[in-house]
Parts: sequence; C-alpha cells; structure tokens
Amino acid sequence: MKLIEPRNLKGFRDYLPKDQIVRARMLEKIKLVFERFGFEPLDTPVLEHEDVLTGKYGEEGEMLMYRFKDNGDRKVAMRYDLTVPLARVVAQYSNELPKFFKRYQIAPVWRAENTQRGRYREFYQCDADVVGAEVGIADAECIAIAEQIIRELGIKKFKIKISNRKILNAIMLTAKVPADKIVVAIRAIDKIDKIGAKAVSAELQEKIGMTVNEAEGLIRLTSTKVPDVGALKVFMNKYILKQPQGQQGFEELNKVFMVLKEMGVKNLEIDLALARGMDYYTSTIFEAAILEKSKEGSFSSVAGGGRYDKLINLFTGKDIPAVGISIGIDRLFSAMLELNLVDKQNVVDVLILNMNKELEADYINIVTELRAAGINSEVYYQQADMKKQFTFAEAKSIPYAILFGENEKKKGQVTVRDLKTRKQVELKAKDLVKQVKKLLRS
Amino acid sequence: MKLIEPRNLKGFRDYLPKDQIVRARMLEKIKLVFERFGFEPLDTPVLEHEDVLTGKYGEEGEMLMYRFKDNGDRKVAMRYDLTVPLARVVAQYSNELPKFFKRYQIAPVWRAENTQRGRYREFYQCDADVVGAEVGIADAECIAIAEQIIRELGIKKFKIKISNRKILNAIMLTAKVPADKIVVAIRAIDKIDKIGAKAVSAELQEKIGMTVNEAEGLIRLTSTKVPDVGALKVFMNKYILKQPQGQQGFEELNKVFMVLKEMGVKNLEIDLALARGMDYYTSTIFEAAILEKSKEGSFSSVAGGGRYDKLINLFTGKDIPAVGISIGIDRLFSAMLELNLVDKQNVVDVLILNMNKELEADYINIVTELRAAGINSEVYYQQADMKKQFTFAEAKSIPYAILFGENEKKKGQVTVRDLKTRKQVELKAKDLVKQVKKLLRS
Repeated sequence: MKLIEPRNLKGFRDYLPKDQIVRARMLEKIKLVFERFGFEPLDTPVLEHEDVLTGKYGEEGEMLMYRFKDNGDRKVAMRYDLTVPLARVVAQYSNELPKFFKRYQIAPVWRAENTQRGRYREFYQCDADVVGAEVGIADAECIAIAEQIIRELGIKKFKIKISNRKILNAIMLTAKVPADKIVVAIRAIDKIDKIGAKAVSAELQEKIGMTVNEAEGLIRLTSTKVPDVGALKVFMNKYILKQPQGQQGFEELNKVFMVLKEMGVKNLEIDLALARGMDYYTSTIFEAAILEKSKEGSFSSVAGGGRYDKLINLFTGKDIPAVGISIGIDRLFSAMLELNLVDKQNVVDVLILNMNKELEADYINIVTELRAAGINSEVYYQQADMKKQFTFAEAKSIPYAILFGENEKKKGQVTVRDLKTRKQVELKAKDLVKQVKKLLRS
Repeated sequence: MKLIEPRNLKGFRDYLPKDQIVRARMLEKIKLVFERFGFEPLDTPVLEHEDVLTGKYGEEGEMLMYRFKDNGDRKVAMRYDLTVPLARVVAQYSNELPKFFKRYQIAPVWRAENTQRGRYREFYQCDADVVGAEVGIADAECIAIAEQIIRELGIKKFKIKISNRKILNAIMLTAKVPADKIVVAIRAIDKIDKIGAKAVSAELQEKIGMTVNEAEGLIRLTSTKVPDVGALKVFMNKYILKQPQGQQGFEELNKVFMVLKEMGVKNLEIDLALARGMDYYTSTIFEAAILEKSKEGSFSSVAGGGRYDKLINLFTGKDIPAVGISIGIDRLFSAMLELNLVDKQNVVDVLILNMNKELEADYINIVTELRAAGINSEVYYQQADMKKQFTFAEAKSIPYAILFGENEKKKGQVTVRDLKTRKQVELKAKDLVKQVKKLLRS
C-alpha cells in the first residue's frame, strides 16, 4: 500500500507542545485582560455565507479569501477576520444583546497570503469590540487593553501610536489631495515605515499627480509625532482645525486622551502617519509597536484597532457606532521568543519513574494521589532503563522525578529528584503531596 | 444599496456570551484535567491536504467531509476529527516528539451531517491521546479522564461502558459470522440502543444471512453487561476464550481494569454490545453515558474513545500503538443546561453607574482601581436613566453596581448595591476594593 506523505499545506503550520504551551498561556492572559475590562466571549462559525464576508475588505481581501461551494452547492467563505462576523451577529440578534455589546473572540482566520513574505495563511486573532458606544471611554478602553496586555506579557519597550481618520482626511484636504484620491493617498502614507519617504513621494506623484514639493509637504505633515493632544494643537493648528472634519477629529482624539490620562495609560504617541489598512475605520485608530531591536531591524505591529461606525450599516441599514482592538498573537509570540521572554514551558511537574514491574500498583497509587491534589503528574508507561526515562522527562521539561523501589517501599519513603540540579531528597511517603507542593512553589 | 441578510449557514450556529461563558468554563475544566494527567497541548491547521484525511473514516466520512480546491488549485479538506491530524503529526515529527507522546487538542471539526437529525456541521472535539504505549496504564488513564471530567462538571448519574474490539471479534467468530462480514455485524450490533433488538436481528438476517436463532443468539451474547472482568470470565468463558483473539482481548481488558481499580475509578461497566463507529479501533473501546432521564428519553454518549494501533501505519508503514479519549463538549453542554447544572453565567462582577457627567473622571478612576485589583468591572459608557443602566447590568448578570454621586463624593464614600437583593451599603471610598472582594467571595 502506498504511504501518505505527512505534510502541511503551504502557509499552514502545526504548533507542537513546546510552542503551544507558551501560546496557550499568552491567550489565557489576553482573555483575562479582556474580561477584566468587562468583555464577554462570543463564538461564531468558521464558515459563513459568502455574501456576509464579501465587499468589506477591499479588493485585496476579496482576492485572499478562501471561498468554495459546499456539498449543498451554497457559496461559502472561511472567516477572514472577527469584525465582520461580529457585525453580522449584532444585526442578527439585535434584540437579544445587551446595549452596549462588549464581546471578545479568540479564533483563527484564513487569508491566502503570499507565503514568500513569511506570512501564514491561518493565524489567530484576539479581538475585543464595543458596539453601541460613541467615541470616548470605549475607545480609550481598547487602547488601554493593548497597553495592559503588552505590559503583562513582559515587554518593556513599546509604544501605542494613536490617530484619528478624520484628522488624516483633513490634512489631505488641506494638502489639496482630491476627495476621491484620499484613500489612495492614505494607503501610500501608511507604507512609510516599510518603504521609506522617497518611495511614498514617488507614489503620491504618480498616482495622485502631486508635485515633488506637494508630496514632500504632505509627508512632512503626516510625519508629525507628538506625545499628547496639547502638543498636537500647538503644532497642527492651521492644518487640522480649518477643516470641519479636522475639528471633529481633534475633539474626538481629545476625549479619548482625557480618559486615557485618568486611566494612567502610558507609552502613548500621536502619529499622524498612522492609517491602518482596513477601509472601514472612520475615527479613532491605533497600533502598538514593540521598540526593541529585532533580527530583522524592527518588529511589526502586534496590536491595533479603531472605530468603524459604518460597518454594521451594511447589514442593518443604520449606522451603529463600534470600536475594537485586535491582538496579533502569532507576531507577539515570535517577538516574545526572540526577546527571550518565555520562561516556563512545561505542563507536567512530576514524573514517577517506572523502576520495577512488581511495584506498578504503587506507582499508580502515587500518581493518583498527586493528581487528586491537583499536581500535574504522570507515571512512565513501562519499565525502561533510567536514561530513557530521564530523556522523556527532559523532552517535556518536567522538573521533578519520583523514585520508588523495594528499598523505599520497605522504609515507607519516596525519593524526589530535582532533574535540573540532580539533587535528591528522601521523604516520608505520607508527606509526599505536601513536600512536592512546597518544591513547586519555590 | 441592498442590505445583506445577517444569517448562519444551515447546521452552523453562534454561541452568544450567555452560552459561550458556560462553554468556555467547561473547556477550561476539561483542559485542567488533561494537564493533570500529563497531557500537553497541540494545535494543527483546520485545512489539510485532502489525501491526509481521506481513506480513514469509512464511506460515510468521505461523503460528509468538506473538500474543495484552494486558490492554488490544491485539493484541500477541512479537519474531520482530531485523531487523523495527530497521526500525521506523529509521522511528520517523529524525531522531535517525546516518546511517549501525550497530547490534547480542543478544536472544532466539520462534517456535512444531515441537519434534520438535530446535528450540527461544526462542533468542538476535546481529545487526549497517548502515542507509543502498549495497552495498560494509558488506556486506563483515558477512561479515568472521562470519569473525572464528567464528575467535575457536576453530573451525578453516569457510567462508562468498556469493551475490547478483539472480544467482540471473538464473539462474532464463535457465532459463526464470516470473517469478512464482522464489520457489518458490528455496525448492526452497535445500533441496538437506537433501533432496538428486533431491527438489529432483521439486519443481521438480511445482510449476513443468519437465521433468526443465530441472530438472536448473537444479540443475547453481545447484550452481556457486567461490572468487572471477574464476572465476565465466569459468564463468557466458552464464547470468548476459545478464540485466540478472545483470549488476547480478555487479557488486555483485564490489564486495563487492574489499573482502573488502583486508580479508584468508579462507574464502570463492561458492555459487549459497545462497538464505537470508527473503523480504526483495534482493542480497548469505551463510551460514557449520562444515566439521568432527558426530554428525549435518554442522553447520547458524551465521551468515548479507544485504542487504534494501526492508524499511524498509514503514514509511516509501521504500527505504532495509540489510545485516546474524545469529549463531546457540545452534547455535554446541552446535557448540563437540561440538568440545570449551570450556575454562574457572568463575567463582569461590578458595574459603575454613570450618574453625572461632571463625575466621569471619578468613574474612570474607580473602574481603573477595581481592574488593577483584578476585579472584572466596567463603567456604563454614557449618562442614562437608572432603569436603562440596571437593564444593562441584568442582561450581563452583573451582581453589583456602584453608585457615586455628588453626595458620596462630598462624604468620601461610595454606595455598593447588590442587584439581586437590591440592598445597598455605603463604604469609605478607600475600602472599596477590599469590601468588593469580600462580597465576591461570599
């Protein structure tokens, strides 16, 4: 019989326990922060009717979406992000949901990205969104959540870049970008960190017909980075505030900053070059960046979000304000590995060595006692030489082994071995649980 | 513009927070039990190369699998269970994994089931498997895990039915079922709880050509239910033990029971009619059933598993022993709702009422203080009449509200209201965290 070659699809990967243990703990921390801020979990299907997802992610999104016909000849699509399914849920259950609706969802999404740029086609998103609240506290909470999560994961140097789409629009109008070209100009400006000012200038000249001076002027304006709204006001008075949109965007940003200040959130920066890819953002936008040096120069953004007051309209016909934050867990995970922020990678704390076939019942009793006390533990499944059993413990990063032979049995003792220091202690059998717990706390 | 109708695909469903809170807590409990028994988490992709999944689930499985061609014209399939991806992982990373490999995975799978029977096309599986261990402790652990999880979820009346495929095969041979018809006979016998003895007898006569007496004899034999291996030996001596396979199956079952006895696992029963659907089982099989009465008469099985020593062979060309347990979380969830075993359905413990626009900074300070102390809390996003705010708290089952007006501010106090009893207490502002924690503990 022909064997099946075990392999992954291009752009898909397995997380073996060593990595998955760390990822799962990160997801748990993220979940706890979401809940601390009052968000409740939601789960939606991986497959949706195609028309629920199409027409919301721009041209590129449409191209990258996994779409097919199911066995019943229905046009279906795989989840592309968690925001559009949320918009569907809000429209579908409007009478059953609390007003305001604060939900989080942690789940994979699929995009048929070009894998040459190191991108994956399946990745997790961790999203928290508020539906129904006007700009203010809700926006600040999303930003505070990003800051809190990054801090709790142990990352020291980072900043949260904040802006407002209305301010960006106002700058565009002031810089004489035609209204119908604003999206094009924003997309160009958004790439400045990746491709540099020169390339952005060229793109602005080519696609919008700006002169070199106009393009460079616009780049200079959007390069504004200030620590708070006061500084922005001084600096940008004549560019932002003479457009009604700019005035409004400035007031919104001001509200959000006032709440952030009361919350004591640090590491903030207003960055007018920030645009965020998705077309659906309408007001507050933000993005978190790790400032440590990475192998590739710098880390990509690990969290971001913003306000999208028009998206739900596509399902309901009326505007419903909404704002959200999305955490890029896989990028955060890579960053944490590179920054050496991962400490504990084990699940199992104790291995009972299988030293003597006659004593297997005793081994089962010991492991059962430890488990009943809530200690993650296992017994080696069959007799084998010690080297094999220690290799197994090492592969799972198990810190302690229990040795129990005829000798120990006679004396009513057990031997506990620290597998790192190789130090052993003999204990009375009846003190085992208490002593192991003590070791694990230390 | 035409609105998009917000709706789910047939056989797919959303879990709104009220339900998802409960489900997520159940999954967390299951995870903790898996880890207590020494299992580590694994994550594999939703999409696999089609040939990785096909040819393992029998004809029906092939029909129900979601398959399509991706944008690169590759034949892909959506995960159908968690066992075959595990087999692939074991073959693919054989040198990187600990020997024995104990992994758990909690993830959705997809089957295009007939929705008329109340089945869903997307559902979660919670699997723990041991790869590399011969029959014995590993099998007993899988059974002990099922028992432990059901008990920890608060279900009182249940049993775990256990058998061994080799014993079933031996009975078939003794009953003169031709070797090439054994699978057909087993499938018929497996349905006895669903369709009754008469229908099974008819099927045996029709499909295998048994006489009425032969069919009824076989049904009688497989109807054997005994509490342990000793009782089985007395009862089944002449049917099982005269076939070499029966001898072997009996010894395997005996080993597993000896370990289960040392572990103190209760609620067990040997049930020779148990077959388990999947073709890949080779030895130990088991299934957990809730014994409480349900609206529909009885509950379906909520967990099950067994030993499949040949499956990994399809990828590697050599037999690698393996045994696993799968928990049916969605069935368990329905059962728990019906049995009224769900208690707490809230995530948020405190709502700060928004009573006065001038005091919004104070509200933000209060909620920030509570969150910093690890208390899940939120502030109502805008001023509104009290009725609206209480309705919001009720929709999220929030137990406590904090009232803070000009009066409280002057006195340096806060008022905490129990939203169930409507009793209020006034506290010193500086004691708030301590007092709220005390209330939440009580």
